[in-house]
Amino acid sequence: MALKVALLGCGVVGSEVVRLINDQSSELAARVGTSLEIGGIAVRRLGRARGTGVDPALFTTDAMGLVTRPDIDLVVEVIGGIEPARSLILAAIKSGKSVVTANKALLAEDGATIHAAARDAGVDVYYEASVAGAIPLLRPLRDSLAGDRVHRVLGIVNGTTNYILDRMDSRGAGFAESLEEAQSLGYAEADPTADVEGFDAAAKAAILARLAFHTRVTAADVHREGITEVSAADIASAKAMGCVVKLLAICQRSADGTSVGVRVHPVMLPRRHPLATVNEAYNAVFVEAESAGRLMFYGAGAGGAPTASAVLGDLVAVARNRLAGTHVAEGAHDTGLPVHPMGETVTRYHVALDVADRPGVLARVADVFAGHGVSIRNVRQEGFGDDAQLVLVSHRAPDAALARTVEDLRGLDMVRAVASVMRVESFGQD
Amino acid sequence: MALKVALLGCGVVGSEVVRLINDQSSELAARVGTSLEIGGIAVRRLGRARGTGVDPALFTTDAMGLVTRPDIDLVVEVIGGIEPARSLILAAIKSGKSVVTANKALLAEDGATIHAAARDAGVDVYYEASVAGAIPLLRPLRDSLAGDRVHRVLGIVNGTTNYILDRMDSRGAGFAESLEEAQSLGYAEADPTADVEGFDAAAKAAILARLAFHTRVTAADVHREGITEVSAADIASAKAMGCVVKLLAICQRSADGTSVGVRVHPVMLPRRHPLATVNEAYNAVFVEAESAGRLMFYGAGAGGAPTASAVLGDLVAVARNRLAGTHVAEGAHDTGLPVHPMGETVTRYHVALDVADRPGVLARVADVFAGHGVSIRNVRQEGFGDDAQLVLVSHRAPDAALARTVEDLRGLDMVRAVASVMRVESFGQD
Repeated sequence: MALKVALLGCGVVGSEVVRLINDQSSELAARVGTSLEIGGIAVRRLGRARGTGVDPALFTTDAMGLVTRPDIDLVVEVIGGIEPARSLILAAIKSGKSVVTANKALLAEDGATIHAAARDAGVDVYYEASVAGAIPLLRPLRDSLAGDRVHRVLGIVNGTTNYILDRMDSRGAGFAESLEEAQSLGYAEADPTADVEGFDAAAKAAILARLAFHTRVTAADVHREGITEVSAADIASAKAMGCVVKLLAICQRSADGTSVGVRVHPVMLPRRHPLATVNEAYNAVFVEAESAGRLMFYGAGAGGAPTASAVLGDLVAVARNRLAGTHVAEGAHDTGLPVHPMGETVTRYHVALDVADRPGVLARVADVFAGHGVSIRNVRQEGFGDDAQLVLVSHRAPDAALARTVEDLRGLDMVRAVASVMRVESFGQD
Repeated sequence: MALKVALLGCGVVGSEVVRLINDQSSELAARVGTSLEIGGIAVRRLGRARGTGVDPALFTTDAMGLVTRPDIDLVVEVIGGIEPARSLILAAIKSGKSVVTANKALLAEDGATIHAAARDAGVDVYYEASVAGAIPLLRPLRDSLAGDRVHRVLGIVNGTTNYILDRMDSRGAGFAESLEEAQSLGYAEADPTADVEGFDAAAKAAILARLAFHTRVTAADVHREGITEVSAADIASAKAMGCVVKLLAICQRSADGTSVGVRVHPVMLPRRHPLATVNEAYNAVFVEAESAGRLMFYGAGAGGAPTASAVLGDLVAVARNRLAGTHVAEGAHDTGLPVHPMGETVTRYHVALDVADRPGVLARVADVFAGHGVSIRNVRQEGFGDDAQLVLVSHRAPDAALARTVEDLRGLDMVRAVASVMRVESFGQD
């Protein structure tokens, strides 16, 4: 007996999912153990149904009617956003359907509700496509590292910002110019806020943190800074240190293991770090685990075909589970680890100061660091006279102490300007 | 009710598995849904049982008795090699136990028999640790890409050879010197044959090809060349082209999709290829799929803790399946794609010839290429007089035609020596 799939949404990803289900039907049937059949496609307007090569009778505007139809076994949600996606997914779950979704916003805001409903109903909710598109990442984190202990996850999870930063690095261009280029090539939207202000990456960080640490994290828990303030001077300063600037989602267990920090912000990263070589709009996620050591997962983070590939992989998995009468009870075992505020997160700062080149400047600057209990790891001076710049990298310290140090430095009369401030992540022993 | 685990072998990996099962018992129980308990450990000599902190009563030299004991649910095999591992695994399967193994040699030689037995008995055989150690790779290939079509897999799957080639590249050292260094640091064994001659990588290539193309491939089907012939001149020649030399396992669907090629040999790879940045003893596998596009999985390829992490991930999965009363029927749907011989594989060659610098040399060399139907992609001359070198890169052609071209070039009187011959893999459009 075929398993019937309801599709919510038929845009770029949805129509690719339909195409794959039809074109690869025999291969999918072989891997699932029975055939997959599209039982219905919910769209906002029926006019969109034309030109897809799909039986027009399958299209409906009654999404709620579709997801609760008794003959439907599996629901694929690719409409995105919080509502009506949440109500539709919850209704599908209550009707006993397993769900595959690419909806990062919903999972980041209310994943716990969705997973609790799925456990109660004994169905699956799979969502590989919600983070880093086609990269098989969430299931490896959930399954393959199930016997391990994750310390830290560093992710380039937004292709738009990675493209922009890559251009700034390779061409020395400014942010505004690089954004325009990204927009003209279709890598950035007309309103780029969700990408460049880090909202998209923050949603993905919340999902990664929940999976890595088995605790509740929502997008609101994520400290978020975008890339709009990243300047050509920052990029140049990073280059001088052998670093590249990346927007990273960072999920980290505290040193004592009693809490987790989750944040999105620009980072200076050594060029020999595997993440530093992730260029253009590619995504990659770097994982540090107790036993597994360092792992990295790399691939296309967006696009219709890659996202549809991830949806199909999930669809095969939930279909197999359905046939076997089993499901994955995600979130059943919550470690309850709290998320600590950004100020308590231990970070390392790079600070470039435009200073007057005269005796005593370094001593005064060092005093400010010491006053907040922050040690200086290294310092170098560049230029002379009125062009002098003092470049300092701190040792690790609570982020709040580092932020206050920078505030005080701004107030020093011999500091003409703070030319660049950015957090630094290390690789290995450095 | 706890699930009882029998462990075959208690060396570096086995004792780490024991440690993890004991140290993380509550976390594992939460993720599996019931606790895991070690029911017995088979070792060759009981003397080895001491010092592990494990109840000595658990140790036995009767491995066959252990794997067929009625109270055992799951068997972890980390003894390696073909026998007695195969007999023990088959006996365990026939007794209804699910099996987790790290045994690449056995799976490469006789995976089809093992999987068929598992399907008949309705049990799982998981083997994530057999290829690329801790990297979650096999299950993503099997599960997440289940709805996709894999075109090509390129893997750095042997850490020893990657370490040696990395040293040759970074230091300009020769093979023998770099091998000695690898041996002194424990990256290479006293008898390095299995690594440097490509046997280890060939076994892994067979496993990757079977998973990627759903067809029977054994180690004997894999064309294998090691790195013992790689010279400092090859490395220098690669550098001059902006390439790095890597030993790759390559599994590729033919252009018409009717067969697959599986091979292990040194390759010149552009430095901007993500695999080119995989240094030291790290492993990485690069996958090109129809919908997912380019993916890469990176991590530690060997070592007790990483391998044990992969074993634990599998153990959690088979334990969950056991509780759910399900299993994965691997190999049930065989595409039957044949493996074509190396000569029919389409490759691209880099050839550096020491030639006499006189008119007509290039014409004669180009004639030889043309005589075998091979087009030249680019050519450059370096040096003058008796030091002249002609460096050619071909277009793609059947490997047999390229090999015959090189043979004929060796016979030309104006060619003093073939200084370097190596296959070239491209990245993207080049």
